[in-house]
This record gives sequence, C-alpha cells and structure tokens, in this order.
Amino acid sequence: MIIVLKPGTEDETVQEILDHISECGLKPLHLPGKERVVLGAIGDERVLGQLHLENHPDVEEVKPVLAPYKMVSREVRPSDSIVKIGDVPIGNGYFSVIAGPCAVESLEGMQQAARAVASAGGAALRGGAFKPRTSPYSFQGLGLEGLKILQQVSAESGLPTVTEVVDVSDIEAVEEYADAFQVGARNMQNFRLLRELGARKKPVLLKRGMAATVEDLLMAAEYVLSEGNENVILCERGIRTFETATRNTLDLNAIPFIKQRSHLPVIVDPSHGTGLRELVEPIALAAAAAGADGLIIEIHPDPVAAMSDGRQSLYPEQFGKLMGKLEMLMPVLGRKLITPVPA
Amino acid sequence: MIIVLKPGTEDETVQEILDHISECGLKPLHLPGKERVVLGAIGDERVLGQLHLENHPDVEEVKPVLAPYKMVSREVRPSDSIVKIGDVPIGNGYFSVIAGPCAVESLEGMQQAARAVASAGGAALRGGAFKPRTSPYSFQGLGLEGLKILQQVSAESGLPTVTEVVDVSDIEAVEEYADAFQVGARNMQNFRLLRELGARKKPVLLKRGMAATVEDLLMAAEYVLSEGNENVILCERGIRTFETATRNTLDLNAIPFIKQRSHLPVIVDPSHGTGLRELVEPIALAAAAAGADGLIIEIHPDPVAAMSDGRQSLYPEQFGKLMGKLEMLMPVLGRKLITPVPA
Amino acid sequence: MIIVLKPGTEDETVQEILDHISECGLKPLHLPGKERVVLGAIGDERVLGQLHLENHPDVEEVKPVLAPYKMVSREVRPSDSIVKIGDVPIGNGYFSVIAGPCAVESLEGMQQAARAVASAGGAALRGGAFKPRTSPYSFQGLGLEGLKILQQVSAESGLPTVTEVVDVSDIEAVEEYADAFQVGARNMQNFRLLRELGARKKPVLLKRGMAATVEDLLMAAEYVLSEGNENVILCERGIRTFETATRNTLDLNAIPFIKQRSHLPVIVDPSHGTGLRELVEPIALAAAAAGADGLIIEIHPDPVAAMSDGRQSLYPEQFGKLMGKLEMLMPVLGRKLITPVPA
Amino acid sequence: MIIVLKPGTEDETVQEILDHISECGLKPLHLPGKERVVLGAIGDERVLGQLHLENHPDVEEVKPVLAPYKMVSREVRPSDSIVKIGDVPIGNGYFSVIAGPCAVESLEGMQQAARAVASAGGAALRGGAFKPRTSPYSFQGLGLEGLKILQQVSAESGLPTVTEVVDVSDIEAVEEYADAFQVGARNMQNFRLLRELGARKKPVLLKRGMAATVEDLLMAAEYVLSEGNENVILCERGIRTFETATRNTLDLNAIPFIKQRSHLPVIVDPSHGTGLRELVEPIALAAAAAGADGLIIEIHPDPVAAMSDGRQSLYPEQFGKLMGKLEMLMPVLGRKLITPVPA
Repeated sequence: MIIVLKPGTEDETVQEILDHISECGLKPLHLPGKERVVLGAIGDERVLGQLHLENHPDVEEVKPVLAPYKMVSREVRPSDSIVKIGDVPIGNGYFSVIAGPCAVESLEGMQQAARAVASAGGAALRGGAFKPRTSPYSFQGLGLEGLKILQQVSAESGLPTVTEVVDVSDIEAVEEYADAFQVGARNMQNFRLLRELGARKKPVLLKRGMAATVEDLLMAAEYVLSEGNENVILCERGIRTFETATRNTLDLNAIPFIKQRSHLPVIVDPSHGTGLRELVEPIALAAAAAGADGLIIEIHPDPVAAMSDGRQSLYPEQFGKLMGKLEMLMPVLGRKLITPVPA
Repeated sequence: MIIVLKPGTEDETVQEILDHISECGLKPLHLPGKERVVLGAIGDERVLGQLHLENHPDVEEVKPVLAPYKMVSREVRPSDSIVKIGDVPIGNGYFSVIAGPCAVESLEGMQQAARAVASAGGAALRGGAFKPRTSPYSFQGLGLEGLKILQQVSAESGLPTVTEVVDVSDIEAVEEYADAFQVGARNMQNFRLLRELGARKKPVLLKRGMAATVEDLLMAAEYVLSEGNENVILCERGIRTFETATRNTLDLNAIPFIKQRSHLPVIVDPSHGTGLRELVEPIALAAAAAGADGLIIEIHPDPVAAMSDGRQSLYPEQFGKLMGKLEMLMPVLGRKLITPVPA
Repeated sequence: MIIVLKPGTEDETVQEILDHISECGLKPLHLPGKERVVLGAIGDERVLGQLHLENHPDVEEVKPVLAPYKMVSREVRPSDSIVKIGDVPIGNGYFSVIAGPCAVESLEGMQQAARAVASAGGAALRGGAFKPRTSPYSFQGLGLEGLKILQQVSAESGLPTVTEVVDVSDIEAVEEYADAFQVGARNMQNFRLLRELGARKKPVLLKRGMAATVEDLLMAAEYVLSEGNENVILCERGIRTFETATRNTLDLNAIPFIKQRSHLPVIVDPSHGTGLRELVEPIALAAAAAGADGLIIEIHPDPVAAMSDGRQSLYPEQFGKLMGKLEMLMPVLGRKLITPVPA
Repeated sequence: MIIVLKPGTEDETVQEILDHISECGLKPLHLPGKERVVLGAIGDERVLGQLHLENHPDVEEVKPVLAPYKMVSREVRPSDSIVKIGDVPIGNGYFSVIAGPCAVESLEGMQQAARAVASAGGAALRGGAFKPRTSPYSFQGLGLEGLKILQQVSAESGLPTVTEVVDVSDIEAVEEYADAFQVGARNMQNFRLLRELGARKKPVLLKRGMAATVEDLLMAAEYVLSEGNENVILCERGIRTFETATRNTLDLNAIPFIKQRSHLPVIVDPSHGTGLRELVEPIALAAAAAGADGLIIEIHPDPVAAMSDGRQSLYPEQFGKLMGKLEMLMPVLGRKLITPVPA
C-alpha cells in the first residue's frame, strides 16, 4: 500500500503514521520526495485495509498495490475452473449456451421454448419466475408456479435450468426446483443474498451490475466463494453508459481482462447486452471470439407476444441459425461446444 | 404512445397493428409520412405498456408520450408533500439536516456524535447498523446491537433516527428501533424490499442508485407509494461516471428537475456525493441553493478512527461551521431551517 | 416529428403552433390525449429542424421520428460501400488490417515496423506524425519529417499509409505524403476539419469520439459526405465510461448497429479500445466476429522503447500470431482477408 | 512514481529496471513484498514520464504520485488568480456574470440582448459567430459578420465580449473584434489551438470537454499557460453521462475540487449544463454556492425564435430575476458581484 501525504505534512505526523503501520505488524517505508512525502506499508492486505489511512487529514491518497480479491483470483488457483449446471460443464474449454424466455409465462410456452433450445443445440434452459421490473405496473412473474413449470419442462426436455433469485426468501424454493441460481444485475451487490448463496452448493450465475466495475464484480463473487460455494459463473451483460442506441453497452473487454485474473468461467448475455434482437447474433459470435465460456440468450416461441423483453428475444429459427454459426466457430477458437444428448 | 414502423412495412401489417390498438380499447392513429409510417395510440398508459408493440419485428421504435410514474407525480398531487421523521418535517419549505456517522460503532461514539449533531443544529441522527460493503473482509456493521444503541442515543438526545434496511428480513427490527428506513443506493431497485416498505407507515429515505436515472428513482418511489406508504423522501447521492476525482458525480440538476415533476421532498447526501471531506461544505451549500429540502451528512467524533467512510466524514467543528452557513443562507433562499428543541 | 405539449396548454397556443407547422409547408397533426396534447409535423426533416419548436415555453418535448443523417444512411444507398486506401479495399466483404506504431519515431523504426506488418499479412501502414497528447510535456510527433519517413517507407514496402491530421493547416501535407487522412477521436467534432476533408478525394478514417454516440459519429461522417467526399471509413475505438480497468470501453454493439443503418465500412481499433497489449488479440477477433470490415492495430518493433502508447502496442510476433488467427476465422465469417502482394 | 511488477518477475529484470531508473538521474527504490515486487522512482516528474515503464511486459501498473500539471497548480502559485475580460475581474472574490445569446443572429437582436444583460447587472456579453453544430444542416453562425456586430454592440453597451474560436485560422479575427477567446467543449483538447492561444495575451475561457476529467481540463489549461498566456478561466459546463433527463450532467463537485488544486478562476455554464431553461436559475445559484467565480448564461430576447439553443435560453425577465437572487446571495457567500458601470 502506497500512502501519499499532503504537501507540508509535519515530520511528527509522518513518524506517527509510520509507527501506526509498524504497530499493525506491517513493514513501514519512508520515501521522501522533492514535492511530496510518500509512505509504504508492506504485508497482509486485510490488515492494511483496516488501517483506514485515507481517513487521516494529512493523507492525500492511498493507492493499494494488490487487488482486493483473493479466492476468485488466479494467484490462488492458476488453472481454469469448470462449473457445472446439472451435467453441463462451463469453462476450461467447454462452451455452453443457456437459452429460453425472459420469464416463464405458461407451461405450453415453456415447452415450446425448451424444444427450440434443445433442437438447436442449446445446453441449458433459462426462464424467470421472479421478475424484477422497473415499473410496479409491469408483469412481475408467476412466482412459485413458474418454478414448478420450469422443473416439469426440465424433466421432460432433459435440459438443466437457471432461474433468478431476487431475495433471500426465494433461495429455498429456487434450490428445490432449479439447477442454478441466477443473481441479476440489480442484485449483484445484495451482499446478504450473496452470503446466503455462498452457503449453498448449487452454482451461482452472477450478473455484472449496470454500474459495477470488473473489480466490483469480482468482489461480489468473492462474497460467495468466501462462504464456501466455489461454483460461480460470472456474466457480462452490459453496463450503463451515455450511449442509448442500445439498451446497454456490452463490455467485451471485460472477458479477456477477467479471464487473465480469475479462474472462474465467464459467460455473456448478448440479449440484455444489446436489447435489440437484430444485434444478438453478431454480438454472440463476438463474445465467443473474445474468449467467453458460454452465452445466455433470450429466445421466445413468439416474441411479439412476450410479456417482457420481447424486443431482444430471438425467434427460434434465429437461434438455430446462431447455433449453427457457433458450431463452425468453436474449432477455430479451440473450444468445445456442449450440446444436449437427445433424451 | 408513438410507434415508428420500419421502412417498407406492408399495409397489411400496419392495419394489423392498428386493429390491435383498437382491440385494447385505445384510439389508434395512422400518420403516413414520406419516409416512415408512424402510428399513435391514445389512452390509458397502463394498457399501452402491455401492448409490447416494441416486440414486433416491423416496429422500429416505440416512444412513450407520458412519464411512466403516476402517484409520485405533481399531476396527481400538485403541492409539495411534507414527510416527517419523528417530529422533524422535510419538504414544502422546511429544510432539515440529518447527520451522524456512517456506521454505529459503539454507544459512546454514537453519544458523542449525537451531541455534536444536536449542538450544531442538526435535526435528526443517522447511523448504519447493517452495512453493505464492497468487500466481504470489511466491517459489516453491529446489526441488532447497533439498532439498540441508536434507539438509546435517540432517547437521550431527542433526535429522531434514520438507519439503513438492507433486506426484507431487517424491516421489523428497524421499524421497532428507528424512526425512518433508509434504502441504500445498491437497493434502490430491490423491488421486494420497496413493496414491503410500502406496506409500512414509517418514512422511507430512498437513495438514488449509482446507475439510476431520475426516472428510475421516481419509479422506485412509485413502488412504495403504490403499496400505500406516501412517506417517501428522495435522496440524490451521486451517480457513477467516468470522473474518478470524486467518489461519485453528484447530479444537482436532478434536484430542480425532480421537484418540478414530483411532490416528494428531495434531500442531498454531499458525503457520498463527493467522497471527500474537503468538498462537503461547498457542495452542501450548493445543494441547498439548488432547491434541496434537506441534507444527510456523515460526521464522526474522530474521523481518523472511523471504521468506514472516514475519508468523507466531517469533524464536529466542520459540521458546526457548515450549519452556521446554512442558517445564514436559508432566509435568502426562502426556506426554514429546522433545528432541534433543546431537550 | 412529434411535439408533446405541457399539461394545460391553451387551445389558442395549440392552434398557433399548428399554423406555424403549416406555414413551413409541413402537414400538421393534432392528437389530443387524456393527459397531454400531442402534435405531429410530417414532411421534410431539414425544414422540421429549423422550426425549433423545442424553444417554445409550452412545449415539453420534441421527439424526432427520423434519423438526422441522410447520405451515410442505407436509405440513400442500400448496399455496402467499399473504400480504398491506396489499392487496399475495405468493406463489402473485404477485411483489411492496418498496423504500425502509434507515432513515426525514426526511419529505421518505421522500416522495421513495415517489414513486420507486411510479412504478417497486414494490408496498410499506420504511424502518426502529428500527435495530440494530453500533456504539453509529452512527445508531440516529428511533424513534416515524420510524413516524409512514412512516404519513403510506403514506397519501399508497397504498403499504403494512414496518418492523423490534427488541424486544417496539416491537410495539404498529409494529402501529399499519405494515402488516407485519419481524424482522431478528439477531432471527431472538429467540423471545420471535416468540411475541408469533405472537399478532398483521399479517404478519411474517422474515429469515434470518447463521448460521441453512434448518431454523433454518423453525423460527423455526414459532414464529410455532404461536401462531396464519399470515402469515409468509420472507426470504433472505445468510449469513456466509469470502467477504468481498461483505457476505454470498446463498444462492439456499435458495429452491427451502424452496419444495419449505414453503407459505410466500419473498422475497429483494439489497441486504443483496450489500452492493454494482452487484450488486443481476443478483442481483435471479437471485432471481426461482430462484423467489422477491418482493424487498425498498434505494433512496435520494440514496445518497451516506444515513445507513446507502448503499453498497448503488440510485439511483431504477437501481431503475426493474431494475423494467423484472423486468416482462419475469415472463411467462417464469410469475409475475405486482404493481404499485401509481395513487392 | 510507483511501479508494480507482475508476479514472478525475475530478479534480473528487477535490477534492469532499477538501473534504468538510476541512469535517468532518479532515485530508485526496491520494495519487495510478499506477493508482488514494487519499485519506486523519486525525482523530477517530466523525466519520470519519459521512462515509459508501463511499456515493459513485466510491469503490471505504473502509479504516478504527483499530478501531471504544474503551472496551473497552487503549488506554483498559492493565491487565487484574477483574470480580466476587458475591465471585468473574475476570481479571488470577484463574481461576474457573462450573458447573451448562443449565436449572434442579427445586429438588432444583439442590441436587445446587450440591453437586457446590462440592465439586469450582467458584466460581459457572450455570442457565437462561429458555431460548431452536430449537424451539417444546422445554422453555422454568421462568421466575420457576427464578430463585427459583436464589436459594435460592445462599443454601444460598454460590455466586454467573449466569443468562440473554433480553429487556429479564426484567432486573429477574434482577437481583433472581441475581448476574450472561448474554447468550446469539443475543442478542449485541440492542442494546436491551445498552443496558439498560449502565445496571445487576451484571456481564454476554456470549457471542459464532455468526456474530460478534471485532470484533463487542467492539462488543457497547462498547454495555454506553458506557452505564456496566464489568463485562463476554466468553465464547468457538464459532462456526458447515462442521465438523459438533462442535456448534460453538471459536475459541481469539480468547482471546489479544482479550486483547492488550482489558482485559476472557475465559472459555470448552467445553460449547457442543464439544457433546460427551467433549471438554469436554481443551478446558477447552486454554482455560486459551490464556490464558482462567475457564470456564463444564455439569454435571448425571444427564445422561441432563437436559431440555436433556444430551449435553454432565459427570457430577459428570467435573467433579471436570477441576477436579483445572486445579488442577495453574494454577501452571504462572501463574494462581490461585479456589475457594469452605466455607460
């Protein structure tokens, strides 16, 4: 940790801060410069953070040297992790596509969607039962009824399922009926929820928040891992920027950036990442080329009738075409596309 | 609602969409232009939203005409609302300052803080018992113990209290021990939490999320009001932008913008809005001049020792100086500063 | 154009605005709703913009129906344009890679760079002679001397060249010594420069500004085309967002979004788009998969010694590896990689 | 300067970098930590920047310790600078208001505007002759004719004038006809222009770019000062963020932040900062309270007829009301409002 002092800081204060660093069992460093005095503190990061040297009125800035995350980092585990949703592997060369409607709307619709996903080569099924919506007047999901539909369709189709958990009180139901917990962008820093999911075993698909930096995302994952659940899949789904042509600005830079620093698999959501059906295919291919370990895509048997996110949902035939292109791309990219075994 | 069709849309499709609008009980409009066909749909907004015309492959764009919020709007209630925390009024000309440490750290510290707040003219006390923190390795608050300290200090000082509720399961405890619920920036779109708070009576101090537009903030408040609780105080606390010189970019434009559209009181948090103790005073004064109905400010008896947010916490004497300036400013701004009645 | 009036606008004012629309030769529309009166104006967009109805105190909002750009749009020219730098085609299925150092630093360095570019299959050479730098104390480029080096190396290697023009007064020199004008991100809205380049014949490589929307970029290109020069290549190079892990946030959504609306070729700069050498390869591949018509990449014979942007410059062998992967990818993506004919 | 090395860097490489630092005449520091080796380099910043240690493949990150600006900094000149436009002082306690239309449209309009400005207590006149416009089809200003009108109206009214210079080739004309050069947001990093203005004597009103950090703004000012012209007035006018309710997000945090670091005067443009006439008054007052040294405000004798920016232009009577409030506010804020001496 590097501590830059304000100009004119008294020698006495400098010594006081150096002593404080020593007392905490860290090695203090004194680097007097021409215009500024700079101090260093070498040792364990957790202790360093508790010093709160940035609080001091004579401290101009504290610059941490190490990343604040540990368990998600390649320094703890150098090789790629594989996380399984049901039997579907994601990561370390396995590329899997999760697809389905934004929300579970009906049994029949879900069955149609599952057939479309499986026949095109999708490996897992998505569908929300609890829907966080910007307006209180919008469709909020079928709740428990939706989870039951999801489970039935999973059993029929053989596709494992991912569904969103919006509150600690939903965890048990989702754990019972689905194969993976999705934590939505709005909940990425719902730390209570993350801790509780850390105490479970099923995988957590953690979506990046709209205002979250890559470091924030990794720290959110750290919450889950630090409680014992190592089955975390990160998901880039776009951030909020000044550009309004698309619903979000998908940050594909984040894919190789994260993969160089973390062992966790990273997938991409080109549906929320663009908000426009017409952009989903090229951006899905781009995500694969950037190094993503999979995709989560919204499709709907009849997007015009979708109760939410229809604008960004693919028609089944569009999804089929996309899967065909991914199949051609994977050998060139040196990864293996996971497709369902016919039931 | 204005519906712009893609170039080359067939007449048949146009008619189909017009019929669909009619069937929903709305008045359809057909505006054929030179380069584009534009349609209109006139009538009740809630029905309009359910049409999901943006899903249609021939629809280029849907432009809503009306704001999506209702109950928070001046069109429903033209005059300013007053919301009371304990006996402290906020809004409609009453300007109140809530102050205190970021987190409740100890009984003694809280007592010192309360004395500093009350003696300088602060009207209410803040202090977090449940702390959402970016890192799982940071101090997470004293929990129930913190709430009890807060209640005791409130009784001793006569200052009503505001404290954060981070999860539905905290609501009962916070309701028992404090005078107002704070919903933090990370929870602004925790819709389950908002709904539950809508069923309570105590006021809700709703902070703007880091990636939330003004419209998102008003829609979040709409969740609370639509469940029956009209005691909502909005709080601008900065948004996340490319500027990293300050912790957030405080959006003071939002103050007059919201006040022209909503009857709800709006306060400002210059501590999180800047992240730097040195900027709190000028920005607090600016917030008052921009038309805010109050402030929520972090102070600490000993900022250097603060367990969180010490960098942005005022020293008691700095807070006193700020209150003195606000007192001078209020008559010029035509508002009344609420100060505590000596116990 | 849709005009939303404020609630309570007098009938007289409504009529006045309708008359004003008529007088301009446009067709006025009156759409009285329950809560708002909405007006429409149908006809030529250029006239519409000059109405400035948004100025009127009773107008709440003006929503344009059509995009403000024309000549860059597919509505004017439906099929993909091909723009040539020297003999190198870009667009409509031709994918070309422009590479070279950030700045021309010396004749020898440029010769080494050109050999690296050509031998790996790069089609054109980049190198800045005039460097816009954030600090007045940084290296500002070799100026005319740099242009001369560029021309000599171009003649020796057979690679056509692209170089930045930072001011109207540089145009003549750049036109004499190089094959294409680059307009940098900071100059994207230097309208005087754009107009002057519109009067020339050599192609213009127009980089997106850091705060420019896709629409702003297309409007900037419109300046060039409206003066007569149709040889514009758009370049996505990242926008400024809250994410600081990478130098910029590359917006690959923009590639398919623009290509669906404009006939102009679009290339990507993964060097500035990421700022980190380690991310250039995966992001370059992603750009190709997203539908880009080419790439512009910074390479340097010895990045450690580079006078600017060394952190994001590829080593020659890294560039060779990337070109190999692009070659494998192109047939899958259905595009043709343009490589130099050995001199 | 702090240099963080990648994990596993060889001792030999470490020594090589340390030697390189020494050779440049700087003092090298070696801080071996548990997980990372950190190096330091102490000495003159300009030399440090030329090391380009960030280019090295074993260097993870370079963290500068000192700000990159010098001449604009309080470390060079501790006390507030006063910059004069004509005879109107700005800074060090003098608060001046510059007002006028966005563009010079006609002699008569300009005369009306000047009367409105002077009679309300505005100290200087603004009006653009060269207008940078997003669309090539919008009004681009009257050019030289506009400058002549501005000069005539200045002579008649006694108000000094500020007008935008969009290109190096305009400098001479603007210098002849006006009292201060305005550099617009889009030109903030037009370094050629900044250098040329640095060689002149008249003051430069430098507007912050839409994607510019505070540090970028100070570096742009550094360009002007480093060429010899110390008469720079900084202007905060809003940055581009995800919030589209207002035209820009005005960053008032920047005012006290800059004033603590720089001696230059800082003014605020609430017209562009909000884009909405209704927000100009509250935000202008907020800017004054935040510590600004002045304001630049768009007013128009007839905003409905304005050829540009009418939506954000004040009516003369609104401007009069605002000036009245500023007059009341100034004594409380301890600053002196400069008003014109009746001609």
